[in-house]
Amino acid sequence: MQAASHHPGFAWLNQSLAPLNAAAEYAARERQRQLTKPPGSLGRLEDLAVRLAAMQGSERPCVDPAWISVFAADHGVAASGVSAYPQEVTAQMVANFAHGGAAISVLARLWGASLEVVDVGVARPLPGLPSVVAARAGEGTANFLAGAAMTEAQLALAMAAGREAAERAWRAGSRLFIGGEMGIGNTTSASVLACALLKLDAAVLVGPGTGLDQAGVARKREAVERALRLHGEDAGQPHGALLRLGGFEIAALCGAYLRCAQLGLPALVDGFIASVALLCAERWVEGVSAWCLFGHRSKEPGHAVVLAALGADPLLDLGMRLGEGSGAAAALPLLQAACALHNGMATFAEAGVAEA
Amino acid sequence: MQAASHHPGFAWLNQSLAPLNAAAEYAARERQRQLTKPPGSLGRLEDLAVRLAAMQGSERPCVDPAWISVFAADHGVAASGVSAYPQEVTAQMVANFAHGGAAISVLARLWGASLEVVDVGVARPLPGLPSVVAARAGEGTANFLAGAAMTEAQLALAMAAGREAAERAWRAGSRLFIGGEMGIGNTTSASVLACALLKLDAAVLVGPGTGLDQAGVARKREAVERALRLHGEDAGQPHGALLRLGGFEIAALCGAYLRCAQLGLPALVDGFIASVALLCAERWVEGVSAWCLFGHRSKEPGHAVVLAALGADPLLDLGMRLGEGSGAAAALPLLQAACALHNGMATFAEAGVAEA
Repeated sequence: MQAASHHPGFAWLNQSLAPLNAAAEYAARERQRQLTKPPGSLGRLEDLAVRLAAMQGSERPCVDPAWISVFAADHGVAASGVSAYPQEVTAQMVANFAHGGAAISVLARLWGASLEVVDVGVARPLPGLPSVVAARAGEGTANFLAGAAMTEAQLALAMAAGREAAERAWRAGSRLFIGGEMGIGNTTSASVLACALLKLDAAVLVGPGTGLDQAGVARKREAVERALRLHGEDAGQPHGALLRLGGFEIAALCGAYLRCAQLGLPALVDGFIASVALLCAERWVEGVSAWCLFGHRSKEPGHAVVLAALGADPLLDLGMRLGEGSGAAAALPLLQAACALHNGMATFAEAGVAEA
Repeated sequence: MQAASHHPGFAWLNQSLAPLNAAAEYAARERQRQLTKPPGSLGRLEDLAVRLAAMQGSERPCVDPAWISVFAADHGVAASGVSAYPQEVTAQMVANFAHGGAAISVLARLWGASLEVVDVGVARPLPGLPSVVAARAGEGTANFLAGAAMTEAQLALAMAAGREAAERAWRAGSRLFIGGEMGIGNTTSASVLACALLKLDAAVLVGPGTGLDQAGVARKREAVERALRLHGEDAGQPHGALLRLGGFEIAALCGAYLRCAQLGLPALVDGFIASVALLCAERWVEGVSAWCLFGHRSKEPGHAVVLAALGADPLLDLGMRLGEGSGAAAALPLLQAACALHNGMATFAEAGVAEA
């Protein structure tokens, strides 16, 4: 673990990560060999079941019920014209999540997952909405083209919002955690965070986000370059990076992944922004990503770079680039299938089938 | 359509294919543009919904209930040591399907699909089993290393078994058809069929199937080469290819895809063997594959070649190579998700969200 701030809000990061269970992993791998199929013929679905067994400490893993927390917050940098959408869309989409009309709302219903929305700092006040948790670290971040995005206290608050979401999931008996995000401007924040942590040029990371045209991408790339010039030296590690360049929802995701790894709750990671949050978590405390599975490869070009840095190969590659946790939720049924096959197929002995 | 046999059992192949519905496709594409997400951000899930709308003639497509028919038959060529498993496994796995212990049984239950097994010609008699349809074209095919695999009458019977399965699905109100197969030796038959139709060398197509070692693959490749020397000239079109080199279950799948396209029932195609059956169908009647979606890319190396010939890019690439329809069934939830998102998301106007 790296030396972080002395702010007391970060003390929980010193707790150790949960261990993987080697005995359950071995038992699950043995079970896979006895199921009525040629060994290995279910491909990655076999590996998923075995990895989940190791995480859950059970020969018979299960991802139901799954829990989805979508973290929403606004970004000061949105004022610099880096998104195809106006900032008020963040709050409007929070209402859409709560009323069941967003992609993540539909997928949560379809696969029987719990869905909550966590307001970590949307700019404008939100009316009373069902299933929205207030955990506000501020009224959006400050514009990191002018100074640090947030204070030390705000970073601690935002990470605690993620920690608490993971704890709610755990207390509810959830077997899998999915984190999503919503925040106009947040691919810009994620891009500059990844550049700072991976020491890469803006051109490698910056893409169209929700749908910028060529001129918009150029403007965004220039913003990322300016931010790196302003903050790069102090943003080579996750604490400084999040403080100076982060978003509240990205910090919350980072906190959620850290807490999942402490609790021993498997996390299914979404796309570009979620992966950058995990990169922050992994750089903060090595080993967090061992508790993560990867749902999908986003069309946002920077995602491939971040996935490579994490050594991750996601399950789906469908050209999605929506965020909200939607790519992870689209992959959830593959985990459900992996567990159902692992637990529900007959063995050669049970079925009276001859082996190779 | 090519000139086929004058056997009356093939007369049904002259019926025309169902047309795609351009108005429904347009309406579905317009709807996608109004849903609360950046245009295109759901990637291939958007295209799936639009294609299904065109097939089903409805702005609001739906794949539930889905129907799965697994066709099982034995292969004379299994006597030539081309499989890692003994021939009796075909019948044993039919019993496993019927009793709910096979991978496809588990996936059908998980996603709420109907599952039937069609005995198109397993070598040994099957005891009375639940949900097994008897449509036997023989007691396995003859070994195509010595002569034709089947007679004209047997080919007509096997294709009719597939036609009737598609009709059962249609009459039951199914909105999607998945065909699977089981037959020890059938990757050998599929490999030689693909070589004959695509004029390719055995080395390009032959792989380990259920799990042959290197010596086994060499033996299998040699068998394919011998079969091509014996039958190649008469097997350049699907009628001759299936007659001389086919399996009953491959012919049944070919018949099922043809009938799906006539009825206007979308089919979700499984792996290597299913794709070779579709190649036969497409070469027999051009346009059949327009009624097909592709579930997964098999690890069996020949699949990539056949997919390229069909211009197909499957949804999943998980290293699966089991058959039974399992790769298509693993992709079924993606189609369910595509439809649920398309039908269930709010529009910008409904949700009061600003557009780009």
